[in-house]
Amino acid sequence: MDLSSYLSRQRKKIDEALDRCLPSEKKNPSLLHRAMRYAVFSGGKRIRPVLALASCEVVGGKAPEALPAACALELIHSYSLVHDDLPCMDDDDFRREKQSCHKKFGEHTAVLAGDALLTLAFQQLASFDGKKGGAGDLKRRLDASLMVARAAGARGMVGGQAVDMEYQDKEPDLSTIQYIHTHKTGALIAVSARVGACLGGGTRKEVERLYHYGMESGLLFQIVDDILDREGYAKLLGVSEAMREAEALARKAKACLAPFGKKAWMLEALADFILRRKA
Amino acid sequence: MDLSSYLSRQRKKIDEALDRCLPSEKKNPSLLHRAMRYAVFSGGKRIRPVLALASCEVVGGKAPEALPAACALELIHSYSLVHDDLPCMDDDDFRREKQSCHKKFGEHTAVLAGDALLTLAFQQLASFDGKKGGAGDLKRRLDASLMVARAAGARGMVGGQAVDMEYQDKEPDLSTIQYIHTHKTGALIAVSARVGACLGGGTRKEVERLYHYGMESGLLFQIVDDILDREGYAKLLGVSEAMREAEALARKAKACLAPFGKKAWMLEALADFILRRKA
Repeated sequence: MDLSSYLSRQRKKIDEALDRCLPSEKKNPSLLHRAMRYAVFSGGKRIRPVLALASCEVVGGKAPEALPAACALELIHSYSLVHDDLPCMDDDDFRREKQSCHKKFGEHTAVLAGDALLTLAFQQLASFDGKKGGAGDLKRRLDASLMVARAAGARGMVGGQAVDMEYQDKEPDLSTIQYIHTHKTGALIAVSARVGACLGGGTRKEVERLYHYGMESGLLFQIVDDILDREGYAKLLGVSEAMREAEALARKAKACLAPFGKKAWMLEALADFILRRKA
Repeated sequence: MDLSSYLSRQRKKIDEALDRCLPSEKKNPSLLHRAMRYAVFSGGKRIRPVLALASCEVVGGKAPEALPAACALELIHSYSLVHDDLPCMDDDDFRREKQSCHKKFGEHTAVLAGDALLTLAFQQLASFDGKKGGAGDLKRRLDASLMVARAAGARGMVGGQAVDMEYQDKEPDLSTIQYIHTHKTGALIAVSARVGACLGGGTRKEVERLYHYGMESGLLFQIVDDILDREGYAKLLGVSEAMREAEALARKAKACLAPFGKKAWMLEALADFILRRKA
């Protein structure tokens, strides 16, 4: 299988699971539910949940074991975009060529939709799929919830956004850019691989390897963003230096996968895909 | 022991645990951390965490087993107040005679502090206290996280706030007021008792009994609020009819406690305390 058919197969599973877990637009409060669904089904690349499912498979787990957590990661990513677009934050009227959530549904509904998406993420992480898990399974699921909460909170994603806002009107230096990148986007991407490996039953060493793969990939993702937008790294270091940095990160990410051999082909291809993406 | 010394003993434990779990103001991003702490340490009555600890004890559990969950409930309550006070929501400049979080720290920091508090709540629910739990203990903790997520999300607290916002400029009828009360405040109060009983190792029947106690107490709490503010129930039904309703709820709440006998004295006293409070 090539990466693009792997991606579309996984994305289909993820979108179906997201559709099942999101509250129906027909149920009250319907405006809130519509805003939640609008935020989630707006053309995202589903990189975080794909990473979780792939990492689960690489350590020998079955994708359905990581599917609720994969949904949780996308719900958290979606909520963060809704809140980041708010007038008091980045004040963006558009996101992926569509109206941003608060433009479409009003500001208070957007705040609440974000809150509800974040809460639903942890509902997914704690949810049962019917099968009776042993202590090991239960422990992995509590661990997964803990890892995601840490990565998404004040010392992770939210902290990154807070520092990004601090530097809205001033030029950050390289170490600040690095802090913002590793926290605002890197932390959630990295934990996606980590959680997938954890729920797939990986050994501690395997989980940590995939976590490192996720960290390199997350920073890679953001540097490529900077190159495409001529921002951050690319502005400070120049495009060609930033590109060299990106290539080095892709190599480091792939090096983490060596012990998994051919099983990890999709994660290898994913690192190249992130490096070469044009949008 | 009387209720007031019970309450101050429990509040001390809760405040110490909250202080331990909140990120230090000395660490970056310090403004975010200061806003989080400001929101949590602003004179709250700690009713939700006290309910959780008391319910844990009533079923024979030890309070420390429910302490992280008790903190989580207060963190969720605190975040909801921060977001509810925002200009795009209730637009309140003051809360408990102090500046509201966004007035003190700015709007984007308030949004992010709320997000971080909600995330930290689920970190607490998934956290380990060092002791190695068996499958039963792990299952109860996953259950607790699931219960709280459901009560706090789109079909619970956030849903109640969404409907409340819908009726900002129109008069809700009695069934809408009831929906708002049972969701916006009732759901989190009810789940506090439920989660405490669950983590204390209560039987399914005991957990459900205390959950019902929590539901009656939550609605009671809100009707008394309405009576004190001459809003909602009190406006629609008149103060004396609302008071009769409140007294009936307090009786129903206490009836749920009958099988626990004298052990449940503090929950009984708490229902009376909620009924008679003047602020």
